[in-house]
Amino acid sequence: MASSLLHCSDKLPFMDVETILHMKEGLGETSYAQNSSLQKRGMDTLKSLITHCATDVYISQMPERFTVADLGCSSGPNALCLVEDIVGSIGRVCGRSSQPPPEFSVLLNDLPTNDFNTIFFSLPEFTDRLKAAAQTDEWGRPLVFLSGVPGSFYGRLFPRKSVHFICSCSSLHWLSQVPCGLFDEMNRPINKGKMYISSTSPLAVPLAYLRQFQRDFSLFLKSRAAEVVPGGRMVLAMLGRQTAEGYIDRRTTFLWELLSESFAALVSQGLVEQEKVDAYNVPFYAPSIPEVEEEVRREGSFRLDYVQTYEINLSSSGDAKEDGRTVSMAIRAIQESMLSHHFGPDIVDALFHRYTELVTESMEREEVKSVQIGVVLTRL
Amino acid sequence: MASSLLHCSDKLPFMDVETILHMKEGLGETSYAQNSSLQKRGMDTLKSLITHCATDVYISQMPERFTVADLGCSSGPNALCLVEDIVGSIGRVCGRSSQPPPEFSVLLNDLPTNDFNTIFFSLPEFTDRLKAAAQTDEWGRPLVFLSGVPGSFYGRLFPRKSVHFICSCSSLHWLSQVPCGLFDEMNRPINKGKMYISSTSPLAVPLAYLRQFQRDFSLFLKSRAAEVVPGGRMVLAMLGRQTAEGYIDRRTTFLWELLSESFAALVSQGLVEQEKVDAYNVPFYAPSIPEVEEEVRREGSFRLDYVQTYEINLSSSGDAKEDGRTVSMAIRAIQESMLSHHFGPDIVDALFHRYTELVTESMEREEVKSVQIGVVLTRL
Repeated sequence: MASSLLHCSDKLPFMDVETILHMKEGLGETSYAQNSSLQKRGMDTLKSLITHCATDVYISQMPERFTVADLGCSSGPNALCLVEDIVGSIGRVCGRSSQPPPEFSVLLNDLPTNDFNTIFFSLPEFTDRLKAAAQTDEWGRPLVFLSGVPGSFYGRLFPRKSVHFICSCSSLHWLSQVPCGLFDEMNRPINKGKMYISSTSPLAVPLAYLRQFQRDFSLFLKSRAAEVVPGGRMVLAMLGRQTAEGYIDRRTTFLWELLSESFAALVSQGLVEQEKVDAYNVPFYAPSIPEVEEEVRREGSFRLDYVQTYEINLSSSGDAKEDGRTVSMAIRAIQESMLSHHFGPDIVDALFHRYTELVTESMEREEVKSVQIGVVLTRL
Repeated sequence: MASSLLHCSDKLPFMDVETILHMKEGLGETSYAQNSSLQKRGMDTLKSLITHCATDVYISQMPERFTVADLGCSSGPNALCLVEDIVGSIGRVCGRSSQPPPEFSVLLNDLPTNDFNTIFFSLPEFTDRLKAAAQTDEWGRPLVFLSGVPGSFYGRLFPRKSVHFICSCSSLHWLSQVPCGLFDEMNRPINKGKMYISSTSPLAVPLAYLRQFQRDFSLFLKSRAAEVVPGGRMVLAMLGRQTAEGYIDRRTTFLWELLSESFAALVSQGLVEQEKVDAYNVPFYAPSIPEVEEEVRREGSFRLDYVQTYEINLSSSGDAKEDGRTVSMAIRAIQESMLSHHFGPDIVDALFHRYTELVTESMEREEVKSVQIGVVLTRL
């Protein structure tokens, strides 16, 4: 499938997000591993919450084997650093009460096309760092058993009642597919010139996105309900909207708007056809708190302990050029697989050249921020 | 470390097998995935034994979750086809007694440098094939939870008492390191011109290899003893010797002898230095049945139910040219990472050009066979 339109009509080819969406593999200049500092910043905000919740579950259950899963771990260094914190924290708790720490089973999940090799290559270094925190075998190796679990988290990933703690950072805003309903009955795109909900989008666009989010998130909750032990917990963090009114929070749509603008520039240079741009929509949705609460209530297996929005400052260094490049490279590492699939790989460099310029210009004018929702759930 | 000698002296650089040994990655012409038909043939011989033993464990324990591990799964198609047979067989047993099949947890292990990505890419196809055999979720997806577990099997890989059935095919003849004791006190190689035990090797060479095998295999058994549930089973298959007398079974040493001969040709052409060849030894050992039995008895956690040697005919097609190429490419996919590390990548093509010629010539003269040992163990 060299090129395809992204929609749900049976008449037109369909983009299989599960096969195509993956963070840029390897460790090169444009790789996700080198360009995930934004996601790390999102994670850092929630880090102490995650460590605290995981430790809490351990203290209340004291299992001999403590199983932790990171959903949407990607291939960068972020995947392992949360685990390190959790193992460290539980190790200290056990140390204070002079009891041996549990064996840890760590399940790193992402789509099957994720670059697991890059995570696994860094394992020897990781286990060296863990030695201080975890119980060790007679050869001094920490009893932390790590595995990669390929598959979509919109569906079952682990055996029944097998996981004590789950975290997922910067992944649940990715939908399982581009929503149905973004083409009219003549198969003409209704979200022209845009790739996500925009102020010019007809109402059918945000409604299609919301429906897809509801379907996906409830499937996510149902799948996890089967897997998490009673009393087990999840900490989820995803991009979201601070306002519950309307579907637009400028801080969430802003970077997509600039990507659409970058495409407009390529169209005017004759590098990309307008119809291709009109037909491209991202499988992304930034929910509001009430939208998240509603699905948790409807599914019914989890108690919502905590939900909160956070602002993340993307202009953190204060140097617009540096911050602009950081943001642009991050979006590229995330979007490259999907853009290449739809437009072909040749336009990617030109697109992100323009995108970096636009993001940098915006950052010269104002601080650019994004909004994240953090949620803590306990399995009833 | 551009070049290194392979031994245990502190004075000289050391080849870290865990970091360097891996089957050729990807799906290309020289990849392991494309050149593992020999290993598959070895596996086929034991396939019904493996399926039978796994099904037996299931029937005797009837767990809700049945956990199977494949140790040294590599990156080829072999990794998944055994699992398919086991899931299918247990599915049929459950079908006959009208009870729901268990959830399956499948753990695929290999060294961290193994190409797990290639296995994971083929997952969607694999799960499609499994649908008929396994219990499915409400969306018709089989409840087979697959994960990749990177690490050396000479050490702990899984949590305590967490695995019902383990198989390992064509992996346990790889040692954790090149044995100590292959250099004299002046650091001169004692196994000149050879890379494995040969009729010209001094007795210290097979003794060094045997010691390393004993250390490694007992560590393997001890690690698995912690992980396998009581009544759980292991089926192990590795290259071995049919004769218990002496250390040479021509069918096992033959392919190494031809590789040494190929090196001799490169040395005489001035492409490789003789000292480099003298210092190269493979981290490989083909044990005899008594040597395997002895370690099982000494470790004490497993009952030896069955041990047997098999001959595998490498001249199976009858076409020496075709069979010669198959064997040569298989050895290349296995050995390339180590050879490149020691000699540099430039010599590999020339080496295997000569090797293919030598193997083909032998196959024109006679049927070439190798010997495999199959072992069934039950956790006490």
